[in-house]
Amino acid sequence: MALVVQKFGGTSVADVDRIRSVAERVAASRARGDQVVVVVSAMAGETNRLLGLARAIAPSPDDRESDALVATGEQVTAALAALALQQVGVPARSFLGHQVRIETDSAYGRARIVRVDVERLQQTLAAGTVAVVAGFQGVDGEGRITTLGRGGSDTSAVALAAALGAEACEIYTDVDGVFTSDPRIVPRARKLERISYDEMLELASLGAKVLQIRSVEFAKRYHVPVHVRSSFNQEEGTWVVEEEATMNEVSVAGIAHDGDQAKLTLLQVPDHPGVAARLFGPIARANIIVDMIVQNVSEKGATDVTFTVPRGDYEKARALAEGVAREIGAQGVTSELNVAKVSIVGVGMRTHAGIAARMFDVLAAESINIQMITTSEIKVSVVIDAKYTELAVRALHDAFIGSAGTEAK
Amino acid sequence: MALVVQKFGGTSVADVDRIRSVAERVAASRARGDQVVVVVSAMAGETNRLLGLARAIAPSPDDRESDALVATGEQVTAALAALALQQVGVPARSFLGHQVRIETDSAYGRARIVRVDVERLQQTLAAGTVAVVAGFQGVDGEGRITTLGRGGSDTSAVALAAALGAEACEIYTDVDGVFTSDPRIVPRARKLERISYDEMLELASLGAKVLQIRSVEFAKRYHVPVHVRSSFNQEEGTWVVEEEATMNEVSVAGIAHDGDQAKLTLLQVPDHPGVAARLFGPIARANIIVDMIVQNVSEKGATDVTFTVPRGDYEKARALAEGVAREIGAQGVTSELNVAKVSIVGVGMRTHAGIAARMFDVLAAESINIQMITTSEIKVSVVIDAKYTELAVRALHDAFIGSAGTEAK
Repeated sequence: MALVVQKFGGTSVADVDRIRSVAERVAASRARGDQVVVVVSAMAGETNRLLGLARAIAPSPDDRESDALVATGEQVTAALAALALQQVGVPARSFLGHQVRIETDSAYGRARIVRVDVERLQQTLAAGTVAVVAGFQGVDGEGRITTLGRGGSDTSAVALAAALGAEACEIYTDVDGVFTSDPRIVPRARKLERISYDEMLELASLGAKVLQIRSVEFAKRYHVPVHVRSSFNQEEGTWVVEEEATMNEVSVAGIAHDGDQAKLTLLQVPDHPGVAARLFGPIARANIIVDMIVQNVSEKGATDVTFTVPRGDYEKARALAEGVAREIGAQGVTSELNVAKVSIVGVGMRTHAGIAARMFDVLAAESINIQMITTSEIKVSVVIDAKYTELAVRALHDAFIGSAGTEAK
Repeated sequence: MALVVQKFGGTSVADVDRIRSVAERVAASRARGDQVVVVVSAMAGETNRLLGLARAIAPSPDDRESDALVATGEQVTAALAALALQQVGVPARSFLGHQVRIETDSAYGRARIVRVDVERLQQTLAAGTVAVVAGFQGVDGEGRITTLGRGGSDTSAVALAAALGAEACEIYTDVDGVFTSDPRIVPRARKLERISYDEMLELASLGAKVLQIRSVEFAKRYHVPVHVRSSFNQEEGTWVVEEEATMNEVSVAGIAHDGDQAKLTLLQVPDHPGVAARLFGPIARANIIVDMIVQNVSEKGATDVTFTVPRGDYEKARALAEGVAREIGAQGVTSELNVAKVSIVGVGMRTHAGIAARMFDVLAAESINIQMITTSEIKVSVVIDAKYTELAVRALHDAFIGSAGTEAK
């Protein structure tokens, strides 16, 4: 008898029929003798509907109230899923974040889990009951409802799997697994059978959108095997696991892209200590996640600093940057809204030399200008004009992954 | 500076515009120097939408999960109302039942409030912040979410007003106040300026639908003045208050009717001690509220027992009654779905003799057959064929209240 956590995303619980399918799938797991904790997202579209109401009232709604508002989406699904399970003869009970209890910090809208207390879930499982947990939500030290950011239900699921010592965390979604690239752009992209936590981390943070990045961090830290698979069929998906020796045989596991980026440059920044902190301090306090930062070599005591932020945070970031530019005597701020980041990822890069150079060659051959570059041990990312995104991804896929394997369905 | 609780019902928060109006009204109270606790219902239609989802999955959904589900309706409104207040410059914060905390028993779907802890609300008010509380919901000793039954937000509001020692509890609704009868049936019905708790209790329990009956019980017990008024205009509504001497001057304050009734009769019930308990015990345990009970004088050791239940509970009640009938050797069960209860209410009945007799005369003059009768100190109720409801109400209004006063708008 195994204990598994099964997480169902928005499209997997999109309507009453889909919720019934979830119940049948959970019932089948249980019939095989597994103990199951189910984690659910809001029904597809519900979070946006709720945010739409909030924004109709307040253009920049208070984060605390937004969280109390949108957390209802998962509460609804959890109750409906519990009802659907009961309806197929499976004892089930729903739990909200504060009932579990999943404690987070107070960073409303993108809170981090600080503690998970699974005693009540364990009692529930021991009684032969399936626990259905509302994903995406927690409660802070003040007792206020928090949410974990887009995709936060993945993190809820992995955190629960870790705390419960579950055998696996299954992430049910509307795709068949993790692909070598986005199948909508690269028709020859193929499903990976296994991928390491580190590769998945890079892919998740680079916009692959399959798993929330924090969920992968949690899975890596607590050694939780994560199985990303489709809720629409019975196929095996992709296992996200510890790094294995065979993974080093290929240099690049996947090509990721993120078109949701904006680029800002502070011109002629006086080059002395503390300037970077004066710029990025206020941006961090505004909870804006800066992705890439490039600072040119200083000439004549002044330098240009360029950085990227999620496009949704562009207005706020631009206002903050302009304030800082005035304060520190920079010449001004320029920005570009239509940029994209394209990345190649693979643990094999550690042992295969010249991967970055080959990437730049491939892009140059397509006459794509590289605006920014960052690298890590297992990835190379470049920022390019957004209109070349598809071209770049296809060219890189052809070069590094090729046409081997089955095509994406 | 007064402390007031203002409760806004479903039609008063039906959409974003209405929620903005609520914020403006609360802001105006606050500008007059009042401290305000706002209690909100779900947006009109939302509770039914959620119950519809539940019933699409489970024809008789589990009460616990239903409560967790429908409680989201008020949670959404509370967050939106807090945002709307912030938007007009009023510091505001939403609270859920378990955050306040409003503790109830575990009668899911129709829970009773057992304790209200207002410490956090008082801290919030002391900080100059408006507290917006999700009505209709509480939390039981197990930490599970409960709801207080239809109209439960009224009770939330009055319970909070009592616990806070508020000067008044204002119930904002889509009618101008409490009327001498239903203006849709009796165009000449007029708004009452003041009505006693006892009269309101009878009217509420008799289907006047303006206030949940438990809210009036709370108000009476804790001497909370309740002001029922429209959220669509600035007019004074009806004050529900302690009985006053002038109230005795009129014999009948109002005519109520309740068309949502079903009648069941157990035929030839063996007439010996304990039979009533065997019948009404199971019905009470099924949480069905029996309204009227009539037992005829026993002849030849057997008697007929007739009782009424809310029409929605008819199927369950009928099944239970048939089971009991077989057990105790009654001849069978007959029932009638289309009955209505019509009542006259007034504290003046205590001092005016012959009110009941005059009521029966009025109905007889319209050839309306009376099927059942119950009386209390301040009311007389009759059960009649539902098709005569309007006729009976109009005739009784003409006879007891007449055309005095202004017509209903």
